Amino acid sequence: MSVKYVYMFSEGTGKMKELLGGKGANLAEMTSLGLPIPEGFTVTTEACTLYNTSGKVMSDEVKAQVDKAIEELEKISQKKFGDTKNPLLVSVRSGSRASMPGMMDTVLNLGLNDEAVEGLAAATNNPRFAYDSYRRFIMMFSDVVIGVSKHYFEVVLDEFKTSKGYKDDLEMSTEDLKELVATFKKIYKDKHGDDFPSDVKGQLYESIAAVFRSWDNPRADYYRRMNDIPYDWGTAVNVQSMVFGNMGETSGTGVIFSRNPATGENKIYGEYMINAQGEDVVAGVRTPKPFEELEKDMPEVYREFLGYSDKLEKHYKDMQDMEMTIENGKLYILQTRSGKRTAAAALRIAVELVDEGLITTKEAVLKVDPKQLDQLLHPTFDPKAIALAKPIGKALPASPGAACGQVYFTSKDAKDAHDRGEKVILVRNETSPEDIEGMAASQGILTVKGGMTSHAAVVARAMGTCCVSGCEEIKMGTKSFELAGCTIKEGDFISLDGSTGLIYNEVIGTVESEISGDFEKLMKWADEHRKLKVRTNADTPEDARKALEFGAEGIGLTRTEHMFFEPDRIPKFRAMIMSDTLEEREAALESIMPFQKKDFVEIYEAMEGRPVTIRLLDPPLHEFVPHSEEDYKVVAGITGKTVEELKAKAAAMHEINPMMGHRGCRLSVTFPEITKMQVRAILEAAIEVKKNKGFNVVPEIMIPLVGEIKEYRFVKNIVDETAKEVFEKMGTTIEYMVGTMIEIPRAALTADAIAKEAEFFSFGTNDLTQLTYGLSRDDAGKILNDYIDNNIYEVDPTARLDRTGVGELIDIACKRGKSTRPDIKLGICGEHGGDPYSIEFCHHVGLDYVSCSPFRVPIARLAAAHAALGAVNER
Amino acid sequence: MSVKYVYMFSEGTGKMKELLGGKGANLAEMTSLGLPIPEGFTVTTEACTLYNTSGKVMSDEVKAQVDKAIEELEKISQKKFGDTKNPLLVSVRSGSRASMPGMMDTVLNLGLNDEAVEGLAAATNNPRFAYDSYRRFIMMFSDVVIGVSKHYFEVVLDEFKTSKGYKDDLEMSTEDLKELVATFKKIYKDKHGDDFPSDVKGQLYESIAAVFRSWDNPRADYYRRMNDIPYDWGTAVNVQSMVFGNMGETSGTGVIFSRNPATGENKIYGEYMINAQGEDVVAGVRTPKPFEELEKDMPEVYREFLGYSDKLEKHYKDMQDMEMTIENGKLYILQTRSGKRTAAAALRIAVELVDEGLITTKEAVLKVDPKQLDQLLHPTFDPKAIALAKPIGKALPASPGAACGQVYFTSKDAKDAHDRGEKVILVRNETSPEDIEGMAASQGILTVKGGMTSHAAVVARAMGTCCVSGCEEIKMGTKSFELAGCTIKEGDFISLDGSTGLIYNEVIGTVESEISGDFEKLMKWADEHRKLKVRTNADTPEDARKALEFGAEGIGLTRTEHMFFEPDRIPKFRAMIMSDTLEEREAALESIMPFQKKDFVEIYEAMEGRPVTIRLLDPPLHEFVPHSEEDYKVVAGITGKTVEELKAKAAAMHEINPMMGHRGCRLSVTFPEITKMQVRAILEAAIEVKKNKGFNVVPEIMIPLVGEIKEYRFVKNIVDETAKEVFEKMGTTIEYMVGTMIEIPRAALTADAIAKEAEFFSFGTNDLTQLTYGLSRDDAGKILNDYIDNNIYEVDPTARLDRTGVGELIDIACKRGKSTRPDIKLGICGEHGGDPYSIEFCHHVGLDYVSCSPFRVPIARLAAAHAALGAVNER
Repeated sequence: MSVKYVYMFSEGTGKMKELLGGKGANLAEMTSLGLPIPEGFTVTTEACTLYNTSGKVMSDEVKAQVDKAIEELEKISQKKFGDTKNPLLVSVRSGSRASMPGMMDTVLNLGLNDEAVEGLAAATNNPRFAYDSYRRFIMMFSDVVIGVSKHYFEVVLDEFKTSKGYKDDLEMSTEDLKELVATFKKIYKDKHGDDFPSDVKGQLYESIAAVFRSWDNPRADYYRRMNDIPYDWGTAVNVQSMVFGNMGETSGTGVIFSRNPATGENKIYGEYMINAQGEDVVAGVRTPKPFEELEKDMPEVYREFLGYSDKLEKHYKDMQDMEMTIENGKLYILQTRSGKRTAAAALRIAVELVDEGLITTKEAVLKVDPKQLDQLLHPTFDPKAIALAKPIGKALPASPGAACGQVYFTSKDAKDAHDRGEKVILVRNETSPEDIEGMAASQGILTVKGGMTSHAAVVARAMGTCCVSGCEEIKMGTKSFELAGCTIKEGDFISLDGSTGLIYNEVIGTVESEISGDFEKLMKWADEHRKLKVRTNADTPEDARKALEFGAEGIGLTRTEHMFFEPDRIPKFRAMIMSDTLEEREAALESIMPFQKKDFVEIYEAMEGRPVTIRLLDPPLHEFVPHSEEDYKVVAGITGKTVEELKAKAAAMHEINPMMGHRGCRLSVTFPEITKMQVRAILEAAIEVKKNKGFNVVPEIMIPLVGEIKEYRFVKNIVDETAKEVFEKMGTTIEYMVGTMIEIPRAALTADAIAKEAEFFSFGTNDLTQLTYGLSRDDAGKILNDYIDNNIYEVDPTARLDRTGVGELIDIACKRGKSTRPDIKLGICGEHGGDPYSIEFCHHVGLDYVSCSPFRVPIARLAAAHAALGAVNER
Repeated sequence: MSVKYVYMFSEGTGKMKELLGGKGANLAEMTSLGLPIPEGFTVTTEACTLYNTSGKVMSDEVKAQVDKAIEELEKISQKKFGDTKNPLLVSVRSGSRASMPGMMDTVLNLGLNDEAVEGLAAATNNPRFAYDSYRRFIMMFSDVVIGVSKHYFEVVLDEFKTSKGYKDDLEMSTEDLKELVATFKKIYKDKHGDDFPSDVKGQLYESIAAVFRSWDNPRADYYRRMNDIPYDWGTAVNVQSMVFGNMGETSGTGVIFSRNPATGENKIYGEYMINAQGEDVVAGVRTPKPFEELEKDMPEVYREFLGYSDKLEKHYKDMQDMEMTIENGKLYILQTRSGKRTAAAALRIAVELVDEGLITTKEAVLKVDPKQLDQLLHPTFDPKAIALAKPIGKALPASPGAACGQVYFTSKDAKDAHDRGEKVILVRNETSPEDIEGMAASQGILTVKGGMTSHAAVVARAMGTCCVSGCEEIKMGTKSFELAGCTIKEGDFISLDGSTGLIYNEVIGTVESEISGDFEKLMKWADEHRKLKVRTNADTPEDARKALEFGAEGIGLTRTEHMFFEPDRIPKFRAMIMSDTLEEREAALESIMPFQKKDFVEIYEAMEGRPVTIRLLDPPLHEFVPHSEEDYKVVAGITGKTVEELKAKAAAMHEINPMMGHRGCRLSVTFPEITKMQVRAILEAAIEVKKNKGFNVVPEIMIPLVGEIKEYRFVKNIVDETAKEVFEKMGTTIEYMVGTMIEIPRAALTADAIAKEAEFFSFGTNDLTQLTYGLSRDDAGKILNDYIDNNIYEVDPTARLDRTGVGELIDIACKRGKSTRPDIKLGICGEHGGDPYSIEFCHHVGLDYVSCSPFRVPIARLAAAHAALGAVNER
């Protein structure tokens, strides 16, 4: 029984991707919908494998089936392949299951030779067109199929034009083109040895074989190995009749959306051009007309197209982006796909498709890409201005949005400029918690160091401020910096795109985004479908309130250290960390405690009884040491120590790898008094809020950086003992929970032991990712580009959760945790908690909630719904 | 049916530890051997649990069984409890399954009251002894059982002696002691309320109950919780007849070893003292006599003892450390246990026990503690001198051995002093590879920073040089340092014990150790039994040769970076890392290549065809940047860059967490040219050695820091392509293997994918431990003491493999690796490869080999044998 190696488009279906490749399956589907697709056929991936495993010889069987398909095409098109009167021309394209670099480019106009070209001239009554097509075909075939570089042809073409004094290809006459065809054939012979093939079947076989061989080339091979694509997938080959929109005034081409892709309005929207091919539209030689005018130009074609548009929308249940060609009054649809749209359009279309009864609310929820919501929550660049802008650099897209403003280099300068009414971009080597005021005063933040989870990135996301981080190419000067040869001084304007990481040396207008009623409607549908709760990471009452507006259901992470950075607090905190004795430290803690308690009171009040998880002090204490001489003097004043003593103390606190140093619960073990103070503040505040406002606050006290159950137990002892003291002192008790971050691999591995005594786990995927990869997020900038360019990492693992390694540890921790405490509460509070791909994983692994920065809460809500509805997020 | 709560020693066995506790089971075993053990009985752990779960009331059943046991004792001893003529006195001791802090101390002489003391006086004909025993008993009972602190008694005792003008307790007369007894009873009544109990049964019940209660005290409870000891284990109580060595000239006490514990000679060895108790021997008031003299003093007792000694050695098949008491001519054995011995003695005893037919070679191998071998391979302190020395500090015992010498603070000064003939101790904040010459010239190394796997520690161990690291208490000055109030200047003498971490501010003589024939014999037996191969970590031909002498079977780790630190190489290497362009870097690499190749040639030659694993460049390049202005100038001379440019470059290379930064295979991804140079050197050297010497070298090229299969694949591509080039150039081929370190948690988790393309795994447990714990070894010093003091960590996990977390990752990696490559070669090259407890794990998890520093090779061989013989290493 012979294998079927060739399928007419009308024989395939949209599901046959493995055999027909993605493109072939798509063409088959559109054909089966009854659309006027230029006819053609697909040579299967199996034919490719056969070719490549049989000494690169095309089998007679495959050739015979190709011949038969060509006959079929001839019948349908009423043209003949290689004919001297009305020749059939075809295109040849590769099309594998997944798109891949290294594959053969398209060959157009195949089927021409010295006779057929005359046939084409006669049939179209356009000899110039015929010879222009012929010379293009010779060049393309030589270059793409045979490997005679197009460079040789281009040189000759340029010389020819120069000798004639032409500036433009269009000036060439039919005779000129005939002369070029002869010259091109000579080049072919010189370089290749043989004559240019005049046998059209030979041209076709050769082109198909070239596609097959391109599956085997080193670039494709390398790509496959780096991306785990099996060799035996093979590629299919699509052979399709050529249609021409440039055959005169009854021909044309166009690109049309079934709805408005900018606003979502349900009104067909597009452009077309008479007597033109797709490339002419792209080249912008003439201005295309709005699609509506086609009604006057070709009323029948117009109506016919409207019918197809409607049919396609109903079939694909989505707004379509379609390409059409009209050849001598006959309409062909070349392509259709779901159209790209703005976030606002996406919402409107989704909501209206529901109203129209075309889709369910579930489907509507799935139609909006969670990542796109960023556009709605942050300013964007004016689309026209940005289209013309040229970036001078690119770094990490650390916090979304667009910003334009004047450059300042210190937090203070930024704040002063802001107070003067300027729009400010803060440029820093890296930010530290002391820069918070300056960051809050800025439109955008640009840093030289630091990754997606650096201080600048985390804080900017929490503020909803645009941030581009880790631009290591920047050379910092004194109140100026250099990038890509430009020197940008204090007060100069730059623009940043925090969603792409692009940096512009110019003023680009920004557009504030508005949230429409469609947003609320869609988010409500999303909430109905999701299983995961969505909390927020909030360190201040303002953050908490903002997140509530965006629909947060609690706080998953309050970082208690950020509270200490206000100018009236930091000196006291410094006095604490630079204490030499327990007594000194306790005295300093006593002076800090009221601030900490006040913040907790306000956060509890803002959350109105919703769950609040508070993490005990986490960062290495030396992160807080004074920076300036002045700062040292302030601390000296408080502590009675000399500046020299303080500096020596600060130096002794230095760590070689602070990320793996004296931090987290290790601080509680060495300085239990810090933990006691924090627990007092947490519980006393909760008792007060309960008493004064009636909110039943149940604080969730989170112990960070646990790697060993005994470590957890030691700190939990302190918490429980302090709680006992507080309850005795206050004469009342209150519920509280104690749990831990899972951010150390060993904690994940020993989660069964830890869960016996921890009431909740919160995955700190920032640290967990760093440790699982052994890759410091602050230093990753030096290697990430090379890793992504070489396909070693698909993306920065600190931005998108690695399911394979980090994910396995999370899975292990969930399973082992539940094995000893079946009702353990599981959440995630790392940066991944706001990333849709990562949220999908959190859903499947069975977490109870994700927690993310306030501006990501809507994204998380939608992504959680996607996950619950079984959507597979784009990787 | 009533439960048996009380066992006479003669009723129990050595295996009944759960019921009788460790001490009780031991006393039962010795009794059953027919030794003259003072009679007694054990109250079981079940009685303890009963007591603590029944409202702390001793049941009548238990009391009745105790009464019956006392009657039994009376019968045997011919004495009567509380008797006025010949009273039975007993001791009461706790004894749980595992020894534990917080348990009740011993009470001696229980059974005395105002009547019985007279009986004792009469029976012993020694009223002073009787009243002295009585006043001691009152104090002990009050303090230990009732909780009336002995402090009250001691104050009165001191006042009494002062008022009488006595300097020594011995000056007190019988009358004095009678007076004291009365005063002590008054103190008891004042503090406790009741009279001192005169009912001897009541004394006994109360003491037993106090032991039971001590199981429940907060300190014990905390200890149990931190050590996962179940509450329901309970403690047993041992009640034993008192015997007295201080009853006159026919009484005495002694401590005797069945062989010489210093040399191992098979000759009984010990000391005794007539008319004395154990505490008198300890107090050193009189000088004890050598055991041989007992033959003259008490010939029968002497012969009787020899019989027991022989019996015990045969029973326990080991040298015994025995305590005896002679009461009025009757010999009692109080205790026997396997005697502590020097390493030399351990070897000799083990070998001779085999010769004597007492034990098998297997048992002999198991008799020598692998850790003890360090003593044989390194100098030790003169035992007499060290006994009197007082340390001024303690830090990490980073490399074993003892050292005494003059302090120098720079590598150069150390070397110069060494060249002048001085013995040198190098004191550094931390060492870097440039200190190697100075380290090699020193007897010992002391560092302020760095843990057990810091540079100083690793290099010192490889050199076999004593090192104490991480002494953070040191304050460094200019050519001096302060520690514990002492200022030690350049040229001053200090002494270091690298096996304990102690630091001495004085000259202490050291003794070089010698390796005897017993060593070779025992190591041969060990080799016969072990399954694990033992390789060495060696970076130089010298290391390799040294390790071969110690029995290494190959090299498990050659760190290629250490080769670059010699003075003629480092400037070239620096020129390489500070290159701005690929061309510059390639040129610099070309100048380094000959050195690298030469080293490989010598290492291959030294190893004579044994396997050699070479790790590609691993550390962050900035570890190599110049330190001094002079160094910068040298590099400026080579590169043509200015010092300022070089400094800026060095600054830009700084990393925040270098351990998780741009290092390992990440260097190969960003600078493939470095890898190419190294692979060329590795393979060209192998080809040359094969040609010139005939050794069939099969280099094992190891890719470090892999965390993702694509990363491995990328680097393996470079290796294979370079190999192809080398083979073409040299006109010959050679076998080589490519594998990877497993040192990143993600590598362990994805080992199945990696093993498909890696021919071997070598566990880099230094990094794996750091990442699994999230604990930087360089910074761990700040927390480790608190962690160990609080029982959170049992030991430093960088020194002893953590089986729970790190071990599970290793196990996962082994299983997954074998799932895709069943014959994958598995080894370990982290510091744990030389630690017996860790080696035991390596054996059980199925590794093929361990690799450790040369001086640890014998330890590893023995430990591997222990593991294969099923020994469970002491934790």
